Amino acid sequence: MPPFPGRTIHFAPFNVTSQVFHLTQHSFALVNIKPLLPGHILVCPLKIKPRLVDLTRDEISDLFNTVARIQRTLTRVYKTDAFNVAVQDGEAAGQSVPHVHCHVIPRQHGDPGSDDKVHEWLEGEEGDVGKAQKDVEQGKEKSDAVKKHDEWMKDEDRKPRTKEEMNKEARWLREEMAKDDEGSGKL
Amino acid sequence: MPPFPGRTIHFAPFNVTSQVFHLTQHSFALVNIKPLLPGHILVCPLKIKPRLVDLTRDEISDLFNTVARIQRTLTRVYKTDAFNVAVQDGEAAGQSVPHVHCHVIPRQHGDPGSDDKVHEWLEGEEGDVGKAQKDVEQGKEKSDAVKKHDEWMKDEDRKPRTKEEMNKEARWLREEMAKDDEGSGKL
Repeated sequence: MPPFPGRTIHFAPFNVTSQVFHLTQHSFALVNIKPLLPGHILVCPLKIKPRLVDLTRDEISDLFNTVARIQRTLTRVYKTDAFNVAVQDGEAAGQSVPHVHCHVIPRQHGDPGSDDKVHEWLEGEEGDVGKAQKDVEQGKEKSDAVKKHDEWMKDEDRKPRTKEEMNKEARWLREEMAKDDEGSGKL
Repeated sequence: MPPFPGRTIHFAPFNVTSQVFHLTQHSFALVNIKPLLPGHILVCPLKIKPRLVDLTRDEISDLFNTVARIQRTLTRVYKTDAFNVAVQDGEAAGQSVPHVHCHVIPRQHGDPGSDDKVHEWLEGEEGDVGKAQKDVEQGKEKSDAVKKHDEWMKDEDRKPRTKEEMNKEARWLREEMAKDDEGSGKL
């Protein structure tokens, strides 16, 4: 059964419905096809708009309040106490998909993303969400840079990123989000 | 005359009143003591709160709508079409001052921040806003890393960052912000 019956959710040209784990009035959150670190997710406006200044006041409010809402659950399930929250707003800032997306990346002291690695990945091919989504849809072979990063992810016993695995991770996060709602009485 | 009569504005322990160029109900924006690139500014909640999840719904809404509002003016005055928008939310994510601050960094294709330099600076000593503020307040000598970055800024005919220069830049940005308000009828 689809996670949000009757809804098809697009991240620019990509149908990412099975990757989505949270939905609000104006925003959605999806598990990343290529997480730079465990728990790396993206939050986007439901309307396909390329830049932050294209969003309405309500869309911006909803987007970043959704980021904070998700941080609460990620803090618990990833036992982390820090996050990189980043929007590459425009091509010259490293944006690869012309649809606003806010990266939320759980961090730990001394994690493999330290010493700038997380940012190197974010700007490099390892973080090119658009290319990865396209490759998976077209069944293309991965580039060397991506294979190298995957190798590290595999070494560390991290999740593979097939459609099925992403769907499984999305279902899990949706359940964990619900637990916090029950616990706190907040939605 | 102080920019916002009767107001003293703190960025964690630092009195940054003379660096502030924009004030809203819940947020303020200041010119950076150590801009990684020209136009690099910070947006903060008025209340000293360390983490995004500490902010109220209204504070988050105001903070990121202020980011977008400022982007409109920076786009015009820096003739840029892209921005890195980033919160280092927690120490393990590179946060150096325990008061939420959103970096807004104008980017251009092929600028000196390309190839990850901007992120390298952000995570390294060059981007340590807290240390720089403290050094200026204590009249301390700058470290080699900071000197090297300053050297590049000087080479490129960028602004020095004395209190006076920051105040001048803040006044200039305040005026430029006002022009956009007049032009668009928006506040």
